[in-house]
Amino acid sequence: MRNRFDIILAQNASEGKRFLGRILGKAPLFVCVIGTTEIAKIPGLSAAGRNPELTDYTPPADVELLLLGKCKCISSVPVTPEGIPTPGLITRSALKLASIPALAVNSGLRVKPQVPFFDLGGSPGRDIRTGKAVENVEDVMENARIAGEHLAKIADYLVIGESIPGGTTTALGILLAMGVDAKSKVSSSMPENPHELKIKVVEAGLKASDIAFSALSDNPVKAISCIGDPMVPAFAGLVLGAADRVPVLMAGGTQMGAVLVVLKALKPVLLRNVAIGTTRWIIADRTSDLKGIITQIADIPILAADLDFTSSRFNGLRAYEVGVVKEGVGAGGASIAAMLKSKGSITKGALLKEIEMNYEKLVGI
Amino acid sequence: MRNRFDIILAQNASEGKRFLGRILGKAPLFVCVIGTTEIAKIPGLSAAGRNPELTDYTPPADVELLLLGKCKCISSVPVTPEGIPTPGLITRSALKLASIPALAVNSGLRVKPQVPFFDLGGSPGRDIRTGKAVENVEDVMENARIAGEHLAKIADYLVIGESIPGGTTTALGILLAMGVDAKSKVSSSMPENPHELKIKVVEAGLKASDIAFSALSDNPVKAISCIGDPMVPAFAGLVLGAADRVPVLMAGGTQMGAVLVVLKALKPVLLRNVAIGTTRWIIADRTSDLKGIITQIADIPILAADLDFTSSRFNGLRAYEVGVVKEGVGAGGASIAAMLKSKGSITKGALLKEIEMNYEKLVGI
Repeated sequence: MRNRFDIILAQNASEGKRFLGRILGKAPLFVCVIGTTEIAKIPGLSAAGRNPELTDYTPPADVELLLLGKCKCISSVPVTPEGIPTPGLITRSALKLASIPALAVNSGLRVKPQVPFFDLGGSPGRDIRTGKAVENVEDVMENARIAGEHLAKIADYLVIGESIPGGTTTALGILLAMGVDAKSKVSSSMPENPHELKIKVVEAGLKASDIAFSALSDNPVKAISCIGDPMVPAFAGLVLGAADRVPVLMAGGTQMGAVLVVLKALKPVLLRNVAIGTTRWIIADRTSDLKGIITQIADIPILAADLDFTSSRFNGLRAYEVGVVKEGVGAGGASIAAMLKSKGSITKGALLKEIEMNYEKLVGI
Repeated sequence: MRNRFDIILAQNASEGKRFLGRILGKAPLFVCVIGTTEIAKIPGLSAAGRNPELTDYTPPADVELLLLGKCKCISSVPVTPEGIPTPGLITRSALKLASIPALAVNSGLRVKPQVPFFDLGGSPGRDIRTGKAVENVEDVMENARIAGEHLAKIADYLVIGESIPGGTTTALGILLAMGVDAKSKVSSSMPENPHELKIKVVEAGLKASDIAFSALSDNPVKAISCIGDPMVPAFAGLVLGAADRVPVLMAGGTQMGAVLVVLKALKPVLLRNVAIGTTRWIIADRTSDLKGIITQIADIPILAADLDFTSSRFNGLRAYEVGVVKEGVGAGGASIAAMLKSKGSITKGALLKEIEMNYEKLVGI
């Protein structure tokens, strides 16, 4: 189902249209939650960095890119092992075109960004195979809630994105612990989705935590603490604080399932005020199943920016069309917000032009 | 000169009126810059804490109070050695009454607040008598500038306050190094302003840095680095980023002189878009001379909330009328913003009522 923007209404189209109507022409604030988990360093799990050790630099570099238009903690933009650039490039381009302000939120990092960021007192996520993944989940969530409450007073709505390498695996952990069958459904930044490896890692974590499928459906704090990552409580806390007052576009792929199931357990009434904003590449992906995850939790709208890089003159962008990267740093949600803020004058074509310009400047050919 | 609000136009009344007209009914964002300097621990210098060692806790406790309505890092609200409560109580009351959102900015702290805060990568200020007061001044200022730029996109105007015990002494240092004669003109949180002690400390710092009066009038970064505190570059950076786009109410007393002289050296054109917002107690203070400092720098408006605690039923609030505390945590500016946002329906009487209610709840009688 289509609409007059370059946006695909991928689930609950009627509510999705209403959501778009409510944010049309309004002034959003983009918030990027960044964090790290040690499992990103398991070889073959994440492509959000040139090599596993470099994944610590990807989240800070992503928000440097958003706020400055260039990275500082690394010399170029974050890339996959094949050199395909971060989706933060899409986010940066969308925010810049539509003059949407951005804030970075540190949920728990090994490397701090060299730009201003919100701190929530969180720590980097540990290897979930220990069963002790995240510290101070409640404190981080409460700090995020307070931040969300205040940010909701200064923006018409929030668009919240994330950057945490390895995050789909921890999302799988939370989803399974809370009773959502997400096995072989979470997305990947690689074209060949390493489902077996993810499941193996998560099952080791569930075993170490002595948690059966669905055992923690009413205990999101424990689920995150045992087998999640720091991004999820920070993201969920922001929504908890903001969605009472303003609409919230949850900008991401299958990881949004983990945030959503946490929200549903804590304050289900807020789900009326949220939608998921993602990219066409996530909707089209045959190696994952966003809708299959979300419909198990709630019938909220899924909106997807109809981005199309097929005609791009850059290999690094055309790679998105064969399933590399797909989403991240709120790329899809930021694109949707740019289209809506500009009342449609920012089209997918205009976006691609800006993305190519920034690609050329930052990555070279 | 009066106007229809409980606001005193204490300097450049015609520009002051225009400034008030521009922010009338608009939606501000309150930003509180917090930091520490070791000189607050010199006995007799600062009353911003029950004893000098406790001054490390005052700034984080102040922003906890603003964001939560109570403190977490200490058991009650910050008080002077005589038990007089922080002006943050005024700020909290004003922001709450007018539903003004607030953000905390860490410019360099020994103790972190247990609420979300913006981090600029700054470090706590050292003893200025070493001549090496603040690290990374340029980085902190640049991070603050980026933050200010983004915050200016989401608020009609900014009100920026500060909490840094010992800050008037470091302000004196910056002012002298940059050629503003502020000796015996900076304010104090004590009724007996310890001018001699402040001058002695600053002169030791100037000597250690080998800086003569006015020697650094074109070099604010060096002045802050040698003899300032971390609050000043963070505050100035926020104004640098924001005042291009929106009005900025610099909420504070004589320390605003140090921020202003830095701004004037870096981007004088911005001074057209700023005003100082303070309290009547600062204007009425015979131990300091805000106007005498500011007029040496620029003829910008000074606005003062006409707060009057004479009739309060609490000793701890009546103490403000005999020169204790006077200003801080942006109390005056927040009060002005509350009056203007409510188009005058929040009067000084309404403010006092709310302040007394919060006083009773938080401090007891």
